[in-house]
Amino acid sequence: MRKDEIPKETVNRLPIYLRCLNRILLRGHSTISSDELANLVSMSPAKIRKDLSYFGKFGTRGVGYEVKPLIERIRGILNLDKNWKLALVGVGNVGSALLSHPGFHRGCFKIELVFDDDPELIGKEISGKKVHDSSEISNLVEKGLVQIGIIAVPNEKARDVAERLVRGGVTGIINFAPVSIDLHDDVKIYQIDISTELSRLTYHMVP
Amino acid sequence: MRKDEIPKETVNRLPIYLRCLNRILLRGHSTISSDELANLVSMSPAKIRKDLSYFGKFGTRGVGYEVKPLIERIRGILNLDKNWKLALVGVGNVGSALLSHPGFHRGCFKIELVFDDDPELIGKEISGKKVHDSSEISNLVEKGLVQIGIIAVPNEKARDVAERLVRGGVTGIINFAPVSIDLHDDVKIYQIDISTELSRLTYHMVP
Repeated sequence: MRKDEIPKETVNRLPIYLRCLNRILLRGHSTISSDELANLVSMSPAKIRKDLSYFGKFGTRGVGYEVKPLIERIRGILNLDKNWKLALVGVGNVGSALLSHPGFHRGCFKIELVFDDDPELIGKEISGKKVHDSSEISNLVEKGLVQIGIIAVPNEKARDVAERLVRGGVTGIINFAPVSIDLHDDVKIYQIDISTELSRLTYHMVP
Repeated sequence: MRKDEIPKETVNRLPIYLRCLNRILLRGHSTISSDELANLVSMSPAKIRKDLSYFGKFGTRGVGYEVKPLIERIRGILNLDKNWKLALVGVGNVGSALLSHPGFHRGCFKIELVFDDDPELIGKEISGKKVHDSSEISNLVEKGLVQIGIIAVPNEKARDVAERLVRGGVTGIINFAPVSIDLHDDVKIYQIDISTELSRLTYHMVP
C-alpha cells in the first residue's frame, strides 16, 4: 500500500502508540496485549489492530504485541530511524522553549541552525546555538542540507519565513504562528496552535 | 446523535474548518462552494460534507455554504459561544508565550489565574497577570470557577499539577509537558507536543 493511501488519522495515531509503547518498555514489560495497549491509549483494540494492519502483520493471538520490535517498526514507518536536521526561525518565548526541549538533545531531530531578525540577538548564542540573521535563511539552510523548518515568529512574518525556508530546500515545516500558510503541495506544513486544541477540548466539555 | 458517537477525527477537523472560514469571511466572501472549501483545507468535498452532516443540514446544492451562519454553527458545536476561564500553571518560556498569545485577549478563552512555584516569580505580574503560588492551585481554581487548566511545567511536576487542577474542579486540560498523564475519565486531556507533530511530518517526508 502506498503511503498516501493510508488514512491520515491512522498516521496521526502512530506517534501516540509509540509514546505509549516507550513508556511500557521503560516499565520493563516486553509484551503487551492489544486490550492493555487499547486501554492505555483510550481506544478500541479493533481500531489499533486495524491501524497497524496497514503496515504488515503485528502481534500474536493470545500473546499480544512484542513491545521492542513494534517500537522499532513504528519508528521505521515514521522515518524516526533517520537523522533529521532542523532550522528554527524565531527565538522569542516559543523558540527558546524549543531550544531547551529535551527531545532535541537526543534522538533523531537536531536543531542545526537558528535564526532571528532582531539585531540584539543576531550573533549571540542561545542554549549553545549561534543565532543567524534571518536574511541568511535560504542560503544557510541550503548549505546545511536542512530538511525541516520550525517557524516561531509573529504572524505577519510567518509567510515570508516559510518561503525562505522552502527556497533553501526545506520540505517539511512546523508552524507555531497562529496563521495558516498555503505553500505548494510538495511541502508539508503542520501547525501547532493552542486555539485549535482548546476548541477540540471544549467540544467535549459541559459549559 | 450523541456527542460521543461522532468520530473524533470529525471533531478534530472542525477547528480547521473554522479557521479557514474565518479567513474567507475576512476576505469579504459571504458564500463558499464545497469545492473551494475543500481546496483550502486540502481535503475532499465529500469528506467535508460527511463531517458536517453529523451536525445537521448545511449548504445548498449549486450555491455552497453561507460562511457566516456556518461559522456560528461550528462555534456553537465546539462550545465557543460560551465563556471559558483558564488557569495557566508555569510561566517559563511556554507559559510566557501563552500569556502574550493574541487568542487570549479576545474571544471566549480568558486566562483567569496564573501559577508558578518559583519564589522569584510568585507575587509578580507577568503580562498584567499576578503570579500565584502553585500550592494555592486547588483553592483558587475552585473559588474562581475555572474550567480549563494549562500545564506548562517541567515533566516531573506535570502529574501533581494536573491532580491539583482536577481537585479544584477543572474538567479539561491542555498539557504542554512531553509526558502522558492518565486521569479519570471525566477529565479530558489534550497534549501539545512538538515530537508528536514532528513524527507526523517525517512520515510524509523522503529522508
